[in-house]
Amino acid sequence: MSQNQRTHRLILMPSGRQGDVPHGTTVLEAARALGVEIESICSGRLTCGKCQIAPEDGQFAKHAISSSAGHLSPPDDAERAFAAAHGIDLSQRRLSCVARVIGDVLVTVPEESQTRKQVIRKEAGEIAVEVMPAVRLYYVEVEPAYLGSPGDWERLQTALAENHHLRGLTIDPAALQRLQKTLRQGSWAVTVTVWQGRDVLRIEPGYVESLYGLAVDVGSTTIAAHLCDLQTGDVLATEAMMNPQVRYGEDLLSRVSYAMTEAQGLQRLNRAVIRALNELAAAAAGNAGIKPDEITDVVLVGNSVMHHLLLGLDPVELGQLPFALATYDPVDIKARELGLKAVHPGAMVHILPCIAGYVGADNVGVLLAEQTHLDDKITLIVDIGTNAEILLGTRDWMLSASSPTGPAFEGAHITHGQRAAAGAIERVRIDPQTGAVRYKVIGDPRWSDELETGETLRPTGICGSGIIEVVAELFMAGLLDKSGRFVPEADRLNPRIRYAGRTAELALAPADETAGGKEIVVTQADIRAVQLAKGALYAGVRLLLNRRGIERVDRIKLAGAFGSYIDPLHAMIIGLIPDCDLSQVIAIGNAAGDGARIALLNVERREAAWLAARSVEYVETASLAVFQDTFVDALALPHAADVFPHLEHLMAR
Amino acid sequence: MSQNQRTHRLILMPSGRQGDVPHGTTVLEAARALGVEIESICSGRLTCGKCQIAPEDGQFAKHAISSSAGHLSPPDDAERAFAAAHGIDLSQRRLSCVARVIGDVLVTVPEESQTRKQVIRKEAGEIAVEVMPAVRLYYVEVEPAYLGSPGDWERLQTALAENHHLRGLTIDPAALQRLQKTLRQGSWAVTVTVWQGRDVLRIEPGYVESLYGLAVDVGSTTIAAHLCDLQTGDVLATEAMMNPQVRYGEDLLSRVSYAMTEAQGLQRLNRAVIRALNELAAAAAGNAGIKPDEITDVVLVGNSVMHHLLLGLDPVELGQLPFALATYDPVDIKARELGLKAVHPGAMVHILPCIAGYVGADNVGVLLAEQTHLDDKITLIVDIGTNAEILLGTRDWMLSASSPTGPAFEGAHITHGQRAAAGAIERVRIDPQTGAVRYKVIGDPRWSDELETGETLRPTGICGSGIIEVVAELFMAGLLDKSGRFVPEADRLNPRIRYAGRTAELALAPADETAGGKEIVVTQADIRAVQLAKGALYAGVRLLLNRRGIERVDRIKLAGAFGSYIDPLHAMIIGLIPDCDLSQVIAIGNAAGDGARIALLNVERREAAWLAARSVEYVETASLAVFQDTFVDALALPHAADVFPHLEHLMAR
Repeated sequence: MSQNQRTHRLILMPSGRQGDVPHGTTVLEAARALGVEIESICSGRLTCGKCQIAPEDGQFAKHAISSSAGHLSPPDDAERAFAAAHGIDLSQRRLSCVARVIGDVLVTVPEESQTRKQVIRKEAGEIAVEVMPAVRLYYVEVEPAYLGSPGDWERLQTALAENHHLRGLTIDPAALQRLQKTLRQGSWAVTVTVWQGRDVLRIEPGYVESLYGLAVDVGSTTIAAHLCDLQTGDVLATEAMMNPQVRYGEDLLSRVSYAMTEAQGLQRLNRAVIRALNELAAAAAGNAGIKPDEITDVVLVGNSVMHHLLLGLDPVELGQLPFALATYDPVDIKARELGLKAVHPGAMVHILPCIAGYVGADNVGVLLAEQTHLDDKITLIVDIGTNAEILLGTRDWMLSASSPTGPAFEGAHITHGQRAAAGAIERVRIDPQTGAVRYKVIGDPRWSDELETGETLRPTGICGSGIIEVVAELFMAGLLDKSGRFVPEADRLNPRIRYAGRTAELALAPADETAGGKEIVVTQADIRAVQLAKGALYAGVRLLLNRRGIERVDRIKLAGAFGSYIDPLHAMIIGLIPDCDLSQVIAIGNAAGDGARIALLNVERREAAWLAARSVEYVETASLAVFQDTFVDALALPHAADVFPHLEHLMAR
Repeated sequence: MSQNQRTHRLILMPSGRQGDVPHGTTVLEAARALGVEIESICSGRLTCGKCQIAPEDGQFAKHAISSSAGHLSPPDDAERAFAAAHGIDLSQRRLSCVARVIGDVLVTVPEESQTRKQVIRKEAGEIAVEVMPAVRLYYVEVEPAYLGSPGDWERLQTALAENHHLRGLTIDPAALQRLQKTLRQGSWAVTVTVWQGRDVLRIEPGYVESLYGLAVDVGSTTIAAHLCDLQTGDVLATEAMMNPQVRYGEDLLSRVSYAMTEAQGLQRLNRAVIRALNELAAAAAGNAGIKPDEITDVVLVGNSVMHHLLLGLDPVELGQLPFALATYDPVDIKARELGLKAVHPGAMVHILPCIAGYVGADNVGVLLAEQTHLDDKITLIVDIGTNAEILLGTRDWMLSASSPTGPAFEGAHITHGQRAAAGAIERVRIDPQTGAVRYKVIGDPRWSDELETGETLRPTGICGSGIIEVVAELFMAGLLDKSGRFVPEADRLNPRIRYAGRTAELALAPADETAGGKEIVVTQADIRAVQLAKGALYAGVRLLLNRRGIERVDRIKLAGAFGSYIDPLHAMIIGLIPDCDLSQVIAIGNAAGDGARIALLNVERREAAWLAARSVEYVETASLAVFQDTFVDALALPHAADVFPHLEHLMAR
């Protein structure tokens, strides 16, 4: 390059980046040198048309530029032919891979040409995710084979290095097996899918744009999968199904126990969840109108037990002290090593890291989606299942704990408890004046006192949110004392209350209203079970607050399905959550699944998730000497030890 | 470290390396810093006892050292206890991991403590190979799990980094699955097998020394496997079997054709050879008294078609111009990805690189074993099968070619031809004076004229070396002319020759001498087939010589089974090989297998093999315009175009 080579000013909008570039450089190369990535799959072969830019005139800082279009090399025949074939108006748009800078130029990189597109997550607030997947497409034309030439794979590597600066690549054995036929089918032109810039997963003949991934939240009850277009970030299909491991154990500990005690237990649990993933992938692909083997990247999240069972790791250590994980770092593994078959044979799987034995990859997913570790406010996130996982922190510190709430909130160990499904009583009101009891069931918008004569809601049982409201309403109606016992002669205060032996119970739905034809009641034992569950959760939260010497949180986020159903006021009344401005208590839905989707769309967020996971301090609250006292204190309604200014204000309604 | 820290001189024998080391450094660490690796698996845990050194007194260069033993820290209780338990005399030997330098010291690192031990290859000359396998053992004690600890794998990584300087490790999924149980079985002490310093393949509880590998030459006819101890380099067992692909096609081209034309052809060929490898591995392990899953490293060599079929790559392109390889670089792949099961689940396979479409990994194995690419002499190596592969060169240049000799030398397309097996006529002599014909068969040391009356050798046919000798002997007896035709009235010159129609034939073995009860004859057509085969081989050699403008070679090496059987003199008489001092024509046996073994024992040789393969220039002789002329010239006996001074001298015997 000569010393006095002419340069021109190139200004790139909307980023505003600018610099002096040598005369004759393509806009694509010049932009790359200035740190602006323009989308390009074919890298100058006039095949993909993704690298369009718009020359503009205007004033930028000190530079007045008045003839951008004229300061780009005029279109040659090839560009004209491509533009004609694809309906591109060359006075408005140019292909940056062939348009060369021959004078000062201002160009706009339109959104669709920007490598890092943005999508907005809609559920529970918004979050911008730049689309920067772990898998990317590269179109290349490979030198044909000749006598004594290097192998086909070596010549493909040469083409990828020369056109896309990819070096030191490896190739999946399955891709290698198809390489020769594919190169010849494509007349030596192929589109290559590369994972993390280092492993060739897939080779397709000619120019293709198919790039899809699957993000899956493997819950112990429900498995939900999102099929995403990895070029746009769009969700093309969402599929969910019950985790088939349920047949081997309703809750996590019973599955751990199954794996420990049954000869083929681990294999059965592993195969069941993998089979489910295969079914979900196939179904999602079908709904999106793509072939399953077009899926080349998968992200999985799940709690620690799910994480281990997915990887075929014996969860036995998670069932006993000190709850040792086999590994807590993120895992990258070939899908086929996991037995995932309804995806491309070379597809990769990324599993988010875990935090500790009972704070798993699902919680890291939540952290990734909520970004509370980047927030000034003190946020509490609780994800309630058989265990409640607790995250508490700000940008400066982050604590986590797990509390053994037991399955009461999932409807288990409650006389007429059931899962949150159609027919379950989810809302309950008791009029403090009249004592009238009314309820709502999932799947019907009406209250039980809004029906026509003779109609009933045919409830099948009561789910977690319903049982919380029963306890809160009984308390507010003065029918329960602070210890959770029915007050003396409660049956005189409310006609729906009666004594069965020495303890009272609430007849919530009479036999003739229910689906099963049997009365649905809430017993003193049911109330006690709710107290134990909320006491365990609250004790965990309290001990984390104590650790930082703080009394209150700025914001409470309720994760998971249960978090979406419960009413924050009632939850606060029974002392399930600590005091907080009620407007700052929000349900965030399946935030773990959102985190999986973010990690699928953006490979840099995987690194961020890993760092976040490692920055969380895990507090084994149950092992603290004060846990038992805190737990006992927390059994009361709301609790003996705490002040609830927001609640007192609200209860005065 | 203080500026005025005391140092002492440490001299290490037999390498003679020396340097000043800080007071109190262990001999192991100090030696490592001086570039001398002392064997150590446990790295100072007083478990393996491999790091013994002998303190010595003596004069070294300017340093007279007179109290080495006293200048090492005295043994502590732990070292004394270990020495007592293992019968080590601490006045003679010390453990370098705990003995610290406290004064000037001269120590000898005995051969068994040197990391790079030497073994000598015995077949066809000697070659020193330092034992430096791709897999190595590391003993570590891992911090036990505690509440909130990092995962077991992460703590194992910490231990490996701290004790053995291993960083950035990955772990095989199968090893991860066994990790937790293994750590607890070993009470947190484990021995880890690491491949290439980067991937953990295997984890065993406690301290173990098992480290085995398998080197396999996958020939199109025979598959031969050597099971090696990767700590000593010793061959513990050798197993061979016929390549079961033979049932799908006798020669390579018929197997390529089978893969092309049969629906499941490729899969059948692939599975057949993989099944054979599994059988050989299991049999070799059984003979060596180890378990198959103690094999953690495997090296494979084979010609290009075998190479492709091993990897499940369709060989179709190798059956047609331009003979394009799917890949010609070395391949590292998990054994289980190939379907190899009779080895450790995490075991790795290394396949040597190929040179070109018809010069495969077996030839690279030959190059590695013979090191002709490092030699001053001009060496010709020929490996004769259905194709003959030719390597020609010196340290400065190396050429290769492949010549389509056809299967004549393997006994095919010869009237009574057969493979070289027991019963085959392998030696033939015709007395020029008396015309008497005698022969020898494989498996019997006697000539046919040395038998008792009534006895016969019961030949079953004639193999490649036999047919070469027949042609050479007929020519030397004046019964064939230079063109290979029986001279006029040959039947009058020798009673064993008779005319069948217009062409003559030699009655080599009468019907009453043979196993099948039928006469064994050599026809004019058989002689023509030998001429075509030797002409093809010779034309290839000639064209390579021409390319360098040279007439003669310094040395000829005959590789493979056929090369071991043929007599150099007879081969030169018929013009199979060019002129050369007969003492410099040697059979090198299964040099490809030797190369595989070298690559198994020494990971650096794999890199060397790759460089060697890439330095070889492949010459597609058949595509040269002069090939046909050269080939036709080469049909004559010896040939029309060449001078054979050595031969003329010898034929004057």
